[in-house]
Amino acid sequence: MQVSFTAAELQAITKPKQVRGATSETVHGLAALASAGPGELSFLGNAKYRSEVATTRASVVLLPSDYDGQPAANQLFLIVDNPSVALAQVCSRIEQLLWPKPAPGIHASAQVAKGAKVAASASVGPLCVVEEGAVVGERSHLQAQVFVGRDARIGDDCWLMPGVVLGADCVLQNRVRLQPGVIIGSDGFGYEFVAGRHTKVPQVGNVVIEDDVEVGANSTIDRARFSRTVVGEGTKIDNLVQIAHNCVIGKHVILCAQVGISGSTTVGDYAVLGGQVGTGGHIHIGAKAKIGGQSGVNFDVKPGEYLFGTPAMPYMLSQRLEVLHRKLPELFKRVDELEKLLAAR
Amino acid sequence: MQVSFTAAELQAITKPKQVRGATSETVHGLAALASAGPGELSFLGNAKYRSEVATTRASVVLLPSDYDGQPAANQLFLIVDNPSVALAQVCSRIEQLLWPKPAPGIHASAQVAKGAKVAASASVGPLCVVEEGAVVGERSHLQAQVFVGRDARIGDDCWLMPGVVLGADCVLQNRVRLQPGVIIGSDGFGYEFVAGRHTKVPQVGNVVIEDDVEVGANSTIDRARFSRTVVGEGTKIDNLVQIAHNCVIGKHVILCAQVGISGSTTVGDYAVLGGQVGTGGHIHIGAKAKIGGQSGVNFDVKPGEYLFGTPAMPYMLSQRLEVLHRKLPELFKRVDELEKLLAAR
Amino acid sequence: MQVSFTAAELQAITKPKQVRGATSETVHGLAALASAGPGELSFLGNAKYRSEVATTRASVVLLPSDYDGQPAANQLFLIVDNPSVALAQVCSRIEQLLWPKPAPGIHASAQVAKGAKVAASASVGPLCVVEEGAVVGERSHLQAQVFVGRDARIGDDCWLMPGVVLGADCVLQNRVRLQPGVIIGSDGFGYEFVAGRHTKVPQVGNVVIEDDVEVGANSTIDRARFSRTVVGEGTKIDNLVQIAHNCVIGKHVILCAQVGISGSTTVGDYAVLGGQVGTGGHIHIGAKAKIGGQSGVNFDVKPGEYLFGTPAMPYMLSQRLEVLHRKLPELFKRVDELEKLLAAR
Repeated sequence: MQVSFTAAELQAITKPKQVRGATSETVHGLAALASAGPGELSFLGNAKYRSEVATTRASVVLLPSDYDGQPAANQLFLIVDNPSVALAQVCSRIEQLLWPKPAPGIHASAQVAKGAKVAASASVGPLCVVEEGAVVGERSHLQAQVFVGRDARIGDDCWLMPGVVLGADCVLQNRVRLQPGVIIGSDGFGYEFVAGRHTKVPQVGNVVIEDDVEVGANSTIDRARFSRTVVGEGTKIDNLVQIAHNCVIGKHVILCAQVGISGSTTVGDYAVLGGQVGTGGHIHIGAKAKIGGQSGVNFDVKPGEYLFGTPAMPYMLSQRLEVLHRKLPELFKRVDELEKLLAAR
Repeated sequence: MQVSFTAAELQAITKPKQVRGATSETVHGLAALASAGPGELSFLGNAKYRSEVATTRASVVLLPSDYDGQPAANQLFLIVDNPSVALAQVCSRIEQLLWPKPAPGIHASAQVAKGAKVAASASVGPLCVVEEGAVVGERSHLQAQVFVGRDARIGDDCWLMPGVVLGADCVLQNRVRLQPGVIIGSDGFGYEFVAGRHTKVPQVGNVVIEDDVEVGANSTIDRARFSRTVVGEGTKIDNLVQIAHNCVIGKHVILCAQVGISGSTTVGDYAVLGGQVGTGGHIHIGAKAKIGGQSGVNFDVKPGEYLFGTPAMPYMLSQRLEVLHRKLPELFKRVDELEKLLAAR
Repeated sequence: MQVSFTAAELQAITKPKQVRGATSETVHGLAALASAGPGELSFLGNAKYRSEVATTRASVVLLPSDYDGQPAANQLFLIVDNPSVALAQVCSRIEQLLWPKPAPGIHASAQVAKGAKVAASASVGPLCVVEEGAVVGERSHLQAQVFVGRDARIGDDCWLMPGVVLGADCVLQNRVRLQPGVIIGSDGFGYEFVAGRHTKVPQVGNVVIEDDVEVGANSTIDRARFSRTVVGEGTKIDNLVQIAHNCVIGKHVILCAQVGISGSTTVGDYAVLGGQVGTGGHIHIGAKAKIGGQSGVNFDVKPGEYLFGTPAMPYMLSQRLEVLHRKLPELFKRVDELEKLLAAR
């Protein structure tokens, strides 16, 4: 993090209700209370760390209104409504410094087809490829080495990081953020078995990614056989996730790392799938359902259900069965004993 | 999908045995019977949807010979031998339109070493790199931002999509299709533990991908320690699959998304591994074996076996044990009861 | 492998203590004893294959001192202290031939910002992008199509293979090897749920990869929310592995393919995680712990523990429970029988 903030700058960003103490240090980093040192900013975001404030060596600490301790020498306390929110404000400022808004325009080394439409406010970075008929909306940013296929459409304020591939005819709505290496619009995995060979079923649909979606590094989302694969508004997808053809992922869904969703499965709004979860194809996972990490789901899930295990079952049941499973040695002994007792009579 | 077909064009493609009704609509999309609207093509591919034909709003419907209903107003029925095959014919035409055959030649921005041999009919797209000694066969297509390492050999009619990496000395035979982001020929994961450190074992073999193989987006196939890692003819590999060094995958195998095959394991012809399956190293999975999703296999599997679970077991056994596992609470109660009864006597 | 060695060259490389027989063949490949043919080199690295030496058709065989058999006609035995080490010497030589040291310098097609510092002995290959403020150390090699973000720092003797993305402000120490498609410094997966939407928590930390680390193809390592994500010295990471933000992976750790480590988890030195293992966040896996393939760990693990299963448990316990689990049908029958016996009395 190549940034620094004076105490005055931090006050301007976080607008504290009250200030205690003072520091001559310039803040050049952020750290947890216990590990912070001079020149670092820390915060009390969780009451369980309250006791660590008294001994933290951070030069500046963001604290809630109900914290009444006093700072050490050369230490500044900023009292705010919500230290986590105040920290996020500082982080946003750092983010702007780390990733300054790129200048609009098309880099000389980018390969943009004549028939592509790139908004004047958009930025196409070095060594990007934009094919015929593609559209890049206002202020959208293709960072570097990005590929945008024929007739693909990118809305406003999107950010495609290095190495992203957006396949032909696929659509990003607005404010979509694709981390490096994301593949949108690879072919669906569809074959018919004919005369001893797997014969490809053409995959001629597309992928539509709605507003405010973020997709993690090296994740893959396949185009539909026909019609479209959809990721709904506000959904957040972690790294190395696989979404197969014709899936419809709802709005504000969370898919953690390495999840795999099989073809034509639909996921309801606000569902949360833990890391490495796998689902069968052609099933529906209800809105607000929660699936624990590594679970395997091969049937419809009701809205709001919380499942765990492979095969998945209600979480509470899975926990109960796990307890009993670990008592199997005892159970076998008890049955041995019963058999002995009965034989002896 | 930026395509459109008149009714006459659809008849020319599908060559129906019989035609019922007529439509003035131009077809611009495909959809399932229940969701199709005017201007869309649909089909009856599965008898269970037969009742939906009467109410579909599709402008054109592909139907089997034994369907005897009549079209609605401004609706065209095309009676064909096999509606799925007829649909695939339409999709193939769409595919050609979506991904028109690239013009032969080397894009001005591609970096092709002087000692590389690119067939005159081949196409090397923008920002590709082709190193010394590499060979690109007739009509093969390196779409964009592809890397082909030293002495790698690509046969005829291959298609390497954006961001593919084909490592030094690796071989693609003919009609191989690599989806975006595929890595062929990364180093195998081999180290010897010497004096407290993991010391790299050089990985100097290669990877050979036989005819008609397709590999899904961001999958990785490691080069052999020495000799070669092989993927057999006609095998289809989904997204985010890992194949370790020295594996030999047979012909016409199916590996679903996120499968991981450990080093030196061999997989027989026509085997099918479900999503997220993991295997140990140095094992053999027999021909036509079937391994259910998320299973873990760490032993040899006989030809034709159907396994499930971690550790994997015969599928029927896994299902039986799962039923009994869920009856554990009942079993514990029954043993409690037996103990009480015996104590009371 | 486009290389060949005469018998004399192999002797010069392996410095045998003793030589038996002779061959006129030039060695152009390596193979296991049973599959080797004329013109190939083989070795006895494991006593269990001793009987195969007598019948191998390899032209040259590396053998240990205690092997006293004689070679066939036109066959050369090289007696060495450790055949595996001798083989590695040959492989290292092959490795140098396969991947010759690149010439220093910046390829004309690379896009290197004016404010980046590239050592004169470093090599920046075709179509790489190096942003403002980035540093590339002595003899480091950016092979092709690599992205190095603003202010990223690369030490000496690193090798970044095609398609690697090293994000802004991230650090590689020395002799780090990144296989193709690796993403270092993608954003951590952090959101706060505010007013029905997942709101991004800026991820402004970085990633530090220490000396002698290797990362496998298409693996992803996220930058910290703040402070840093760390991979310790000498750690080896296989393909398609996910490491979330703020993780601290110790030194000389082994992470096999498709492992996923959730946020803020720490892994002790010399721990080994098998393929497809998943961990929860904010836990600690002790030094030298071993976690079996596909296991799920959601709690702290003590140093040296060997765990298996989802949820993970001590390996020996998991094996014992697995045996009993498979006896459930028998146990249910035994309880049925007991109930019948008691009812009959």
